Amino acid sequence: MSGSASKSLARLLRQTRRSSIPRPQLTQCQSIRASFEPVRSFSVTYRRRSDPSEPHHDVRYTTDMYPSLKRDPRFAELTDEHIQFFKSTLGDDAAVIDGVTKDASDDLEPFNRDWMKKYRGRAKLVLKPKSTEEVSKILKYCNENKLAVVPQGGNSGLVGGSVPVFDEIVIALTRMNKIRSFDEISGILVVDGGVIMEVADNYLAERNHLYPLDLGAKGSAQIGGNVATNAGGLRLLRYGSLHGNVLGIEGVLPDGTIFDDLSTLRKNNTGYDLKQLFIGGEGTIGIITGVSIHCAQRSKAVNVAYFGLPSFEHVQRAYKEAKIHLGEILSAFELMDARSQGFVHQVTGNKRPLDGDHPFYCLIETSGSNTEHDSEKLESFLEYVMGEEIVSDGVLAQDETQARQLWGWREGITEAIGHFGGTYKYDLSIPIKELYSLVEETRERLDSKGLVGDDDSYPAIAVVGYGHMGDGNLHLNVPVRKYTQEVEDAIEPWVYEWIQKRRGSISAEHGLGIAKKKYIGYQRSDTMLKLMKQIKDLYDPNGIMNPYKYI
Amino acid sequence: MSGSASKSLARLLRQTRRSSIPRPQLTQCQSIRASFEPVRSFSVTYRRRSDPSEPHHDVRYTTDMYPSLKRDPRFAELTDEHIQFFKSTLGDDAAVIDGVTKDASDDLEPFNRDWMKKYRGRAKLVLKPKSTEEVSKILKYCNENKLAVVPQGGNSGLVGGSVPVFDEIVIALTRMNKIRSFDEISGILVVDGGVIMEVADNYLAERNHLYPLDLGAKGSAQIGGNVATNAGGLRLLRYGSLHGNVLGIEGVLPDGTIFDDLSTLRKNNTGYDLKQLFIGGEGTIGIITGVSIHCAQRSKAVNVAYFGLPSFEHVQRAYKEAKIHLGEILSAFELMDARSQGFVHQVTGNKRPLDGDHPFYCLIETSGSNTEHDSEKLESFLEYVMGEEIVSDGVLAQDETQARQLWGWREGITEAIGHFGGTYKYDLSIPIKELYSLVEETRERLDSKGLVGDDDSYPAIAVVGYGHMGDGNLHLNVPVRKYTQEVEDAIEPWVYEWIQKRRGSISAEHGLGIAKKKYIGYQRSDTMLKLMKQIKDLYDPNGIMNPYKYI
Repeated sequence: MSGSASKSLARLLRQTRRSSIPRPQLTQCQSIRASFEPVRSFSVTYRRRSDPSEPHHDVRYTTDMYPSLKRDPRFAELTDEHIQFFKSTLGDDAAVIDGVTKDASDDLEPFNRDWMKKYRGRAKLVLKPKSTEEVSKILKYCNENKLAVVPQGGNSGLVGGSVPVFDEIVIALTRMNKIRSFDEISGILVVDGGVIMEVADNYLAERNHLYPLDLGAKGSAQIGGNVATNAGGLRLLRYGSLHGNVLGIEGVLPDGTIFDDLSTLRKNNTGYDLKQLFIGGEGTIGIITGVSIHCAQRSKAVNVAYFGLPSFEHVQRAYKEAKIHLGEILSAFELMDARSQGFVHQVTGNKRPLDGDHPFYCLIETSGSNTEHDSEKLESFLEYVMGEEIVSDGVLAQDETQARQLWGWREGITEAIGHFGGTYKYDLSIPIKELYSLVEETRERLDSKGLVGDDDSYPAIAVVGYGHMGDGNLHLNVPVRKYTQEVEDAIEPWVYEWIQKRRGSISAEHGLGIAKKKYIGYQRSDTMLKLMKQIKDLYDPNGIMNPYKYI
Repeated sequence: MSGSASKSLARLLRQTRRSSIPRPQLTQCQSIRASFEPVRSFSVTYRRRSDPSEPHHDVRYTTDMYPSLKRDPRFAELTDEHIQFFKSTLGDDAAVIDGVTKDASDDLEPFNRDWMKKYRGRAKLVLKPKSTEEVSKILKYCNENKLAVVPQGGNSGLVGGSVPVFDEIVIALTRMNKIRSFDEISGILVVDGGVIMEVADNYLAERNHLYPLDLGAKGSAQIGGNVATNAGGLRLLRYGSLHGNVLGIEGVLPDGTIFDDLSTLRKNNTGYDLKQLFIGGEGTIGIITGVSIHCAQRSKAVNVAYFGLPSFEHVQRAYKEAKIHLGEILSAFELMDARSQGFVHQVTGNKRPLDGDHPFYCLIETSGSNTEHDSEKLESFLEYVMGEEIVSDGVLAQDETQARQLWGWREGITEAIGHFGGTYKYDLSIPIKELYSLVEETRERLDSKGLVGDDDSYPAIAVVGYGHMGDGNLHLNVPVRKYTQEVEDAIEPWVYEWIQKRRGSISAEHGLGIAKKKYIGYQRSDTMLKLMKQIKDLYDPNGIMNPYKYI
């Protein structure tokens, strides 16, 4: 199949007679080459739950990393009596993993650590309720008995938000996995909080709709977790944020109160929109058991293109042109630097989409209702960026398989980078002009301190940047051979000061969890923090919900 | 220019050689006729502020309509000393309309009544701060002195939310009317709360962007008021709700605290999204002084079409087909019944866009980046709905003037209906299938009680339905010769019970204000109401913010 991509593009380019847009001569353009020959498939989705059979002595306890954290003495220690209550309430043996009255450390381990091997807790009890009423009974009991809890969805988060720190009880939503309803006229889907994103999206695909959020961990991430994290993901540019798309939430407050706001209406202005506090609340004021969400129609035509570009300046120009030429069909504009693509190549062994090395890569996706129109728009964009030499090289996916493979080069970065030991991850909002400067400055900084290099004597392997260009959202990643205080101190709080000066965000979409908690002051004023704490105290006066994290 | 609309459509229809969509024979379609000849222009925007020179004895005091309302004795009465404080704080004479130490009733009247002539208060003081700091000083003082206040934007609301009930102090945002910044790359606009929608949209138009909300009152409605009401408007279908588009809010809490969350980032997951409580909070927990909002690119191509249809069943089919054929360029799908269009014709005297009477009318708007593509999509849609006889007749605007005129037939309804005395207005979310049944049932109900008819002996003139089909949002309007208890009792609470049975919303986009306050129990559970009251008590323990309204 070598050559098919370039042939198609040439055909596309030839087919443009009808377009009234003035076109550059083809001789001006660097030709888009044929390089699309996947060597072996690279799945774009992962199950991020750690394999319990893996040795886990490699993961340090979170409390070792954050020695200043002390177990809150307000919280009770688990007793046999507590276990008896939970077993009698949840009934089923599969619903309780009990490490209190017996040894269950191997069964508990996957719930006690994150997939990045960065956070590890010491929970002795995991509860898996199967209904909102069971969640209510659990929380009410925990609140009355001052037992701290951690809500856990797919545990695919990036800031340690869903991993226990001490002996908090894990409340896993895995068994609340029913799709409750879908209305094809309005596009409104109602699900349990534990439904996996990909399951929902497959269900919607059969009904010509799509889940309005997409991210690399979709094979394990749960919808309740998406909402609790206010996940942004790959298509926010097109479909907007969860604050707009989530129409209703059913949840349980710490005292067992069922928060019944599972509206299925596009519009409903009847009182304070309290459900918004759950969106991005990271499980600190309640547990999300049900979600009602507006889903767009699935596009008939989806195109994916992948480019190499000579500089970040060129990436910005390409983005500007994409907005002009692609307009309403632009559904993703993703940035990847050379190092990020090198890691994906190294870990997967897949043949690269483009020959040669380029300092920057972009992935552009269009989604529209008319294949011919979308191809024409894309073509006019391609001609322009090639003619103006804004991009150096590119390929265009010819079918869904190729589109998924191209997406693999973007979605696979996190997993590929995580392969070497660990990763310092920063998820930042930055004015677009300065987006990549931070990566360069971080690289210089670690280099000048002798902390980054190719051989094993350096703690850090590289400094990598990628992200959602369209949202001004950069993922700054520093893969390390092991987590060390030296590297951490070289980056933090320097990176947060950098962001603060530019009025960016220290957490664009990953949330605060335990990773960002201590840096919130770089982002929010004392006034805002005081107001947030008021809300926490209002809903969770005993502080049992996901303690030691967030604000 | 008679004939231009039909000629253009015929030309469009002939120009479809390139389209691969199978087309019905033109002979199958009822031809789209030429009827587009505006007799006199009908402005689509209004200044809704009442003319103070009008006699106002025609408007009853709100307290006469709601005799059970009593002035809250916790609130202080205004004194000379208070007035002195405000005058010294705001400095400028124009900033204080003082009806306490002197007679200023004519100057106060426009702030004391709404444009529908339905609500009328007895405020003796209007304050017009020009900065957030001034708002802060005012509120702090009012809070300490237990002086009740009503925040007021353009006063174009529909539920009496911005009109005082007793002697609350009106805080008018009119002088906070600066556009603070706009970033053309990100599309993020930052404005004072008192900026008028249309001013912002004109400013954005010059920069190829658009304000993501549109509504009939845009010439007077202010952005702070939009946000406080969570206004939905005409283009929610395309651009989404304010919960998604508003990125930051600066506000003042009752104790004078400045809520500084005026983020200009598309993504920012750093703590509870408290600003969401202001969106739709109707000025009951604070005053919005600044708004940061994401604005989409302005579409190069905008098309507007207007149809006559034989039944509501046909309207639903047209909507389904519009979603299929127009996909991502569909930006509005509005429903208007025969009576609504009759009123616009009667009041404006404009020539109707279509000959003959049709039971239903729709207005469809497309907005896209490519004129040719959009025309092709619209054409394929038109061919289909004409070929299948889903629509009986239609016209297509040939230029922006005609587009605005067609919009006038939708946007002018509220104003036209309000011409006769008064209107009982219900703004409801209903599952689309049953959307129009409510209008029919209400008509039958009033008819059977002998309350509606053409001559002056009947209190009600008609029962009218129109609204945002795409959002499942019906405006049920009952224009009356005068407001009577009889008509009100025939409709309420029956209409709310009807909605409750179908799990709709008793206020889709207008909010609660004073009009819906007592019916909130049809919408929200006791649990949710209790949680909302907690929030109110948390932020406004003295209850000074917009009392007697909301929940």
